[in-house]
Amino acid sequence: MPIKTVNIAIVGTGVVGSSFLNQLINLKSAYVNYNLVAILNTKTHLISEDYSPLPIKTDSWAAYLKENSTQSALSPSELVAYLKKSSNPSILVDNTSNETWAYSYPEFVNSGISIATPNKKAFSSDLKLWNQLFSGNPENGLVYHEATVGAGLPVVNFIKEQIQTGDEIEKIEGIFSGSLSFIFNTFSSTDKNFSEIVAEAKSLGYTEPDPRDDLSGMDVARKVTILARIAGLEIKSASPDSFPINSFIPGDLAKVPTSEEFMQKLPEHDEEIKDLKETAAKKDLVLRFVGSVDVKNNKVSVGIQEYSTSHPFASLKGSDNVISIKTKRYQNPVIIQGAGAGADVTAAGVLTDVIKIAERV
Amino acid sequence: MPIKTVNIAIVGTGVVGSSFLNQLINLKSAYVNYNLVAILNTKTHLISEDYSPLPIKTDSWAAYLKENSTQSALSPSELVAYLKKSSNPSILVDNTSNETWAYSYPEFVNSGISIATPNKKAFSSDLKLWNQLFSGNPENGLVYHEATVGAGLPVVNFIKEQIQTGDEIEKIEGIFSGSLSFIFNTFSSTDKNFSEIVAEAKSLGYTEPDPRDDLSGMDVARKVTILARIAGLEIKSASPDSFPINSFIPGDLAKVPTSEEFMQKLPEHDEEIKDLKETAAKKDLVLRFVGSVDVKNNKVSVGIQEYSTSHPFASLKGSDNVISIKTKRYQNPVIIQGAGAGADVTAAGVLTDVIKIAERV
Repeated sequence: MPIKTVNIAIVGTGVVGSSFLNQLINLKSAYVNYNLVAILNTKTHLISEDYSPLPIKTDSWAAYLKENSTQSALSPSELVAYLKKSSNPSILVDNTSNETWAYSYPEFVNSGISIATPNKKAFSSDLKLWNQLFSGNPENGLVYHEATVGAGLPVVNFIKEQIQTGDEIEKIEGIFSGSLSFIFNTFSSTDKNFSEIVAEAKSLGYTEPDPRDDLSGMDVARKVTILARIAGLEIKSASPDSFPINSFIPGDLAKVPTSEEFMQKLPEHDEEIKDLKETAAKKDLVLRFVGSVDVKNNKVSVGIQEYSTSHPFASLKGSDNVISIKTKRYQNPVIIQGAGAGADVTAAGVLTDVIKIAERV
Repeated sequence: MPIKTVNIAIVGTGVVGSSFLNQLINLKSAYVNYNLVAILNTKTHLISEDYSPLPIKTDSWAAYLKENSTQSALSPSELVAYLKKSSNPSILVDNTSNETWAYSYPEFVNSGISIATPNKKAFSSDLKLWNQLFSGNPENGLVYHEATVGAGLPVVNFIKEQIQTGDEIEKIEGIFSGSLSFIFNTFSSTDKNFSEIVAEAKSLGYTEPDPRDDLSGMDVARKVTILARIAGLEIKSASPDSFPINSFIPGDLAKVPTSEEFMQKLPEHDEEIKDLKETAAKKDLVLRFVGSVDVKNNKVSVGIQEYSTSHPFASLKGSDNVISIKTKRYQNPVIIQGAGAGADVTAAGVLTDVIKIAERV
């Protein structure tokens, strides 16, 4: 196979974007010349006018970017127009969680530009958008999104491969949130109050700035929507209109205006949450915040479940994710467990997708 | 991307080979026309002289093969010569565990023919053969072998991807044998004698005809050799010359001539094996037969280890495999668990590799 050149255009230079850039710069391949031609973020952009590689190196790319980028945003349509003019195949790497970029994916794909991204928005919003991205038209660009569930763990592509080889997905269940994993693992293995643990998770940077964004279950609902769609269920969107999303924000604290006030009032609910835990413990069960896709019975749900202490979900450590996949062939479910968040593992999941695409196009 | 045609030549029509054929015939792809041109086994062969697809269908291929194949074996060199004459890229699918075919792989690869296989021989024998297969020459055919470890579980390709994206493998540990998994899981969770459980595993078809082929640890040693080499260790071959392979064949039963006599004499050792189990149980530990690759300390080993009852290896069920992968990025190891043997999951692992190759070449 002759060496081919594939253009890479990156959107997003946050924590995942930065880690991705470092990994990409260090990537060695005998098959593909990875030609980094564009780096964009919300405020600036840097593109190679003649499609020659941007002269950026590990350790110095941030400085180079700062000095040489144009102080204006480039729109998705402008990026499509730029990439289309090149004779090389191109890959958009969207390392943001931006909705505008997500909704622009069909424009890229229909122009033959492929996409690798950890951005869940495109895959968990309108079903119409999902169908546009996976129409199966071989003229379109390819779309890979391993890092939308479980970061770099082999989940999304593994499930797609099982289906492609004729297996049938029966049930997918898992702990898909690093912050909720940490909170409930710690809650069941220590005597700390729930509010203390949430404060600890917040200070460790595991939760969103407002921990209610985790406790609401919406992030888990997005991941579950993606897995349910892969498994063949037609989920309209990641919302309570489509399936039960049982928030774990206690009482009426969802209505409290600020994150600070929420954190201040959370201890008032410690006793009732402790009761839940103790009631479960009496039955030798522990509480876990899970997402579940029961394909056979067309039932999807997000919320607290109780698991026996010998269940793989019960022995989870730290902020790890765990995903259980039961199929026609794997009647004993396949279990995949490990870090499901973090810049380096997420970036590696995206880069693995970039490599797969580049080797195909 | 235009639809391309890729030739598929299959060696082996045993249980994995049959399942693979059924899955391949049912495979649908918008990108690749899978052109099945040759089916070989030890006694017969069937090839399409003009490289048009063999007219075989699900349910009827076995009958078609029986009626139309030539009653003579085709040698690896003859198959290479045949495939080289086609203008399409070709993939050899070796569904045997044959050593002759394994040693012929370089001939295929050097002729630009790619390989997908669950046959461990090529990857766990001489290091020279391994180096020939993974020389990194982009002119050569590609070699994928996911199903050599853990059948269809995402292990081999996942580890390779981590390395490619810049991660460093620190330790790989696992229960890699379905039969030994069943034997030790049952031994630690029931009161049955060891010899009874071995007899049960044998009657269920989990062990080789002579269970000593499992208890010797040689099959595990082959898998461990493959993983150690991927992780960067230069293992000369899967043999006690390279690393400790601690057989679990008790006393001098390795020397007993027949499998029947071995099974007959095994009960004499039940008490001493029970002692091992009870000594471990007093420390709240269970016995597991594991393979271990400690990359940091350049230590590889195969044999019995003791694990705490809360360890993921202790809660394994049935004949499942479990693989723990610790890397620089995944300091909490990634755990992958599920059926590591069986015709359908092995065939699916091979077919997934075929798809990946076909989409690349």
